[in-house]
Amino acid sequence: MIRKTKEGVRELTLRQTARFLKKHNNYIILTHASPDGDTLGSAYALYYALNEIGKVAEVICPDVIPKKYDYFARKTDHIDKTQATVIAVDVADKRLLGALEEEFGHKIDLCIDHHVSNTRYAKNLYLDDDAAACAECIFDLISVMRVNMNDITAKAIYTGLATDTGCFKYSTVTEKTLLICATLYEYNIDAAEINRLMFDTKSKKLIELEAMVLNGAEFHFDDKCMLLTVTADMQKETGCSGTELEGIAVISRSVEGVIAGVTLKQTGDDEFKVSLRTYPPLDASAICKKLGGGGHKGAAGATVEGSLAEVKEKVLSAVKESLDLL
Amino acid sequence: MIRKTKEGVRELTLRQTARFLKKHNNYIILTHASPDGDTLGSAYALYYALNEIGKVAEVICPDVIPKKYDYFARKTDHIDKTQATVIAVDVADKRLLGALEEEFGHKIDLCIDHHVSNTRYAKNLYLDDDAAACAECIFDLISVMRVNMNDITAKAIYTGLATDTGCFKYSTVTEKTLLICATLYEYNIDAAEINRLMFDTKSKKLIELEAMVLNGAEFHFDDKCMLLTVTADMQKETGCSGTELEGIAVISRSVEGVIAGVTLKQTGDDEFKVSLRTYPPLDASAICKKLGGGGHKGAAGATVEGSLAEVKEKVLSAVKESLDLL
Repeated sequence: MIRKTKEGVRELTLRQTARFLKKHNNYIILTHASPDGDTLGSAYALYYALNEIGKVAEVICPDVIPKKYDYFARKTDHIDKTQATVIAVDVADKRLLGALEEEFGHKIDLCIDHHVSNTRYAKNLYLDDDAAACAECIFDLISVMRVNMNDITAKAIYTGLATDTGCFKYSTVTEKTLLICATLYEYNIDAAEINRLMFDTKSKKLIELEAMVLNGAEFHFDDKCMLLTVTADMQKETGCSGTELEGIAVISRSVEGVIAGVTLKQTGDDEFKVSLRTYPPLDASAICKKLGGGGHKGAAGATVEGSLAEVKEKVLSAVKESLDLL
Repeated sequence: MIRKTKEGVRELTLRQTARFLKKHNNYIILTHASPDGDTLGSAYALYYALNEIGKVAEVICPDVIPKKYDYFARKTDHIDKTQATVIAVDVADKRLLGALEEEFGHKIDLCIDHHVSNTRYAKNLYLDDDAAACAECIFDLISVMRVNMNDITAKAIYTGLATDTGCFKYSTVTEKTLLICATLYEYNIDAAEINRLMFDTKSKKLIELEAMVLNGAEFHFDDKCMLLTVTADMQKETGCSGTELEGIAVISRSVEGVIAGVTLKQTGDDEFKVSLRTYPPLDASAICKKLGGGGHKGAAGATVEGSLAEVKEKVLSAVKESLDLL
């Protein structure tokens, strides 16, 4: 029996999802915008699995897929969009489809996801919020469908698992995650090389920028808060910007005693993108909500207008309000 | 039958090592100097296991054990040194016993290790160079001895596995490593908290030092080699030294295109500790051997005498020799 939510979404079990996949023949598989290792790994692993059982499928990503994923993100089939069954993987909200939302947002036939915050926008939903990564759901599907796994599928799944867990560092990792990972090692995946590509390939110019950013590191509120600033000048001088700056926010939470790591990235003359990383009991999303943004408990963001001094003041007072409540 | 090397070292199998441990009663367990998570995790896991079967044991570390290991490095028994059976864990060479070499270097009854470069200094040796960490050997011993595992032992072993593999990132990780890790998750280990302590708790002064080190980063040989220097002055100015500098070497290999990451840490007026991290096909241990040191394929070290300029020249020419052979 298929459970229906009040929104009319059919909530499928693993076996029901496997039957759904076996029933249809032409698939479009969508990833979320600003694609990461999990949405891409999940999409391509599913693509290879569907191919293996004679289905035709096309992976479509709202943004350009970074070259570093080339080792599994190969050319897929080309599908007549009007005939296709549309699947979204690792997409918690249809807004995350970015440029593809208008075309596909209202006609997602199946969503496969692991986010507890999933907004139930798809006609059918397979949600396992115990999974450390969406790729864990795909592995389970491949297993119950008894589809042959091969090296490239294993690489795609490993990439999803490793990237969504900080390489098995976070609390989302379970015994099951590790057992799946051990199974993937039976294939020729070269996990060390994948991890090098995913975690250890900073550019020379990023190293230069990091030196500048660390030089200007500030500590506030008995060193419970670390604040890093990436000015427009720094970005110009090093030639480092955009997604390349992603890793800076991670640094802000890596210091002993710090429970609020703030990163301010200048995005305009009087505009800064604020990234906040926190440790419990501090709630990053609550703090960023006060600044007009949002996100998860441990990682959230906002865009704040003003001079550097003004933005710093706004952000630090929002952090202080929450620290004072602890 | 016990195999003897030409140096007269008895090379034990896993079962022979288990029998050895069951036969004796009073143990001293030694770690290497500048202790890391693997030597400490291995020593304490072995201590808890021996205690569990009624043996008395004392863990002795040549240096002060950093406070961050407090969650498993508790007070051990106190042993009459003249009566004890001496075990060294994760100690590839007796010189690595540091301040304890003189007292114990010539009387190690058993060495348990995973370094292929082990110098066969102990009377008995259990060496598994397929193990990603020495803690993997300890897990195997506990398994064949059928000793009860408990939470603190599991935490100690997890710490060894995670720290020696960069949190399961490196090529030394095997299917077996992951299966052991999955077994450890059956205990109450709070792996995420361990990983936070091990990987994400830099001190404020280390951040300051990192900024200095990154500022002075050098690139050589078409950017295939990155060289970082930690001078005595930097250590003095920031108050950052010893094991706190461990993480610097990891940075040296995190840059795109770099296959040889060199870190020079000044340890005396004319003495530098060289840490080398490489990616295949470059062999760090072969390069460090030329400098009088040793280690693993991907991570090795040596102590080199001379001024900074001289040491730099020696190390870079050793790296170049190997790069030229590729």
